[in-house]
Amino acid sequence: MGFSNRIPLRIEWGQCDPAGIVYNPRFFEWFDIGAWTLVQAALGVPRNELSSRFGIIGLPLVEAGANFKSALKFGDNAELVSTITDLGRSSLSVQHHIFKGDTLAVDGFEKRVWAAPHPDDPSRMRAVPFPDEVRARLGVG
Amino acid sequence: MGFSNRIPLRIEWGQCDPAGIVYNPRFFEWFDIGAWTLVQAALGVPRNELSSRFGIIGLPLVEAGANFKSALKFGDNAELVSTITDLGRSSLSVQHHIFKGDTLAVDGFEKRVWAAPHPDDPSRMRAVPFPDEVRARLGVG
Amino acid sequence: MGFSNRIPLRIEWGQCDPAGIVYNPRFFEWFDIGAWTLVQAALGVPRNELSSRFGIIGLPLVEAGANFKSALKFGDNAELVSTITDLGRSSLSVQHHIFKGDTLAVDGFEKRVWAAPHPDDPSRMRAVPFPDEVRARLGVG
Amino acid sequence: MGFSNRIPLRIEWGQCDPAGIVYNPRFFEWFDIGAWTLVQAALGVPRNELSSRFGIIGLPLVEAGANFKSALKFGDNAELVSTITDLGRSSLSVQHHIFKGDTLAVDGFEKRVWAAPHPDDPSRMRAVPFPDEVRARLGVG
Repeated sequence: MGFSNRIPLRIEWGQCDPAGIVYNPRFFEWFDIGAWTLVQAALGVPRNELSSRFGIIGLPLVEAGANFKSALKFGDNAELVSTITDLGRSSLSVQHHIFKGDTLAVDGFEKRVWAAPHPDDPSRMRAVPFPDEVRARLGVG
Repeated sequence: MGFSNRIPLRIEWGQCDPAGIVYNPRFFEWFDIGAWTLVQAALGVPRNELSSRFGIIGLPLVEAGANFKSALKFGDNAELVSTITDLGRSSLSVQHHIFKGDTLAVDGFEKRVWAAPHPDDPSRMRAVPFPDEVRARLGVG
Repeated sequence: MGFSNRIPLRIEWGQCDPAGIVYNPRFFEWFDIGAWTLVQAALGVPRNELSSRFGIIGLPLVEAGANFKSALKFGDNAELVSTITDLGRSSLSVQHHIFKGDTLAVDGFEKRVWAAPHPDDPSRMRAVPFPDEVRARLGVG
Repeated sequence: MGFSNRIPLRIEWGQCDPAGIVYNPRFFEWFDIGAWTLVQAALGVPRNELSSRFGIIGLPLVEAGANFKSALKFGDNAELVSTITDLGRSSLSVQHHIFKGDTLAVDGFEKRVWAAPHPDDPSRMRAVPFPDEVRARLGVG
């Protein structure tokens, strides 16, 4: 397992559905925040400067998934633990665990790519290899 | 493959991120809409009457995932095709395909359960077996 | 009153809060969709081509507000009626009414500007006067 | 001016639109979080226990509005300052200011009501007078 990052979560009224539990797309919002924060922390570069610093457009998602093990409710406090689990030539796999106390409430993951403007059409993106300095810092040891 | 349902999608400005493509949690919102609409269509009961009619609290998600194959952008038109793929004692598996023209842009799935108030604590939910009439109508055959 | 546009709304599970009614930020999402669709319809230009066609970055909001008169619930059908009410040199005022049947459920408005990249810093925006052809088509008569 | 509450905001990727600035409905989400947190702090009762403690269903919004004075971008840090400005028999007015450093970026407000189940139909809500102990603690001095 590689670099890891923790973010506290406070479950709010508007994040819950008529059954009183977190509406599931919110978990994928938190995974997104977890991934950007993880890359920021690993690289030591503010997440909003990754684009200008490395010429990327973003970190587009190619795959995501989650098991929802126990519900979170309005007023709950939880913690998102995001961990780099694998590094490909241009892709990054991240495990996202959401804990309420000692209980694993959500067990998720994402696979993202390092993406630059397509040379034939700058409005499109394509995956590009990680620069060496990025790879070294994201590296799973 | 069982019952299937189609919903047109119109990609809007606020559903897209700074890279100009759909922000991924939106896909899970659409899966949620697809699943409720599918159950409504299969059962012939308005989705907001499922609770009073069958005593359920909701259709909580136990697992979800997606492969994001090609990006959708502001102004795109797409179609969500949701199909029942498996039926357990109290669980329902749904495939969610999002097409832009003939291209499969997102290949996702959900596993949900038929959930009633917990007898020991009505504020909690627990999975319960599908009633026979529901099972017959959802049935994959 | 000027140009007007109607969009049907179907209230979904995940758009509602633990009280079972629409979570208020959703109304502002619908206002946003209403405004883009209104400008698209008035100008006869696809909303995702406004940027390349007229050199704008977007239609940033400078003011918004709403009175919430009656609640909308999961399963309700409603209609958003968006109408241009005023046109300034570079600003556009839009009234957004959401009806459930004959009942006005939400009475809202937005004031937006026609915005181009700032000449000193393309990452910033500034309001610019409407081109004549745009003004003529948006015009309140 | 009455009771006040501060919440730090960190602007995230998925909260921004294709123009790279915060998508406006997010501000109304933050106002909602600000209002619940303000009432929690003023009353000294966890926000998720207000319902069981006082028999209310929620704090439904009757009016909201905002002036958007300067854009917030991905990576910005800001602060939401929510302040009780007026107290009616059953209604509460809250001012929401969002600052980036010393700059007031968003100047908003909400008017909410203290709402209980309707005696004729528990699925509906109606505004009820604040209990004395609540009024005393929310009171604008």
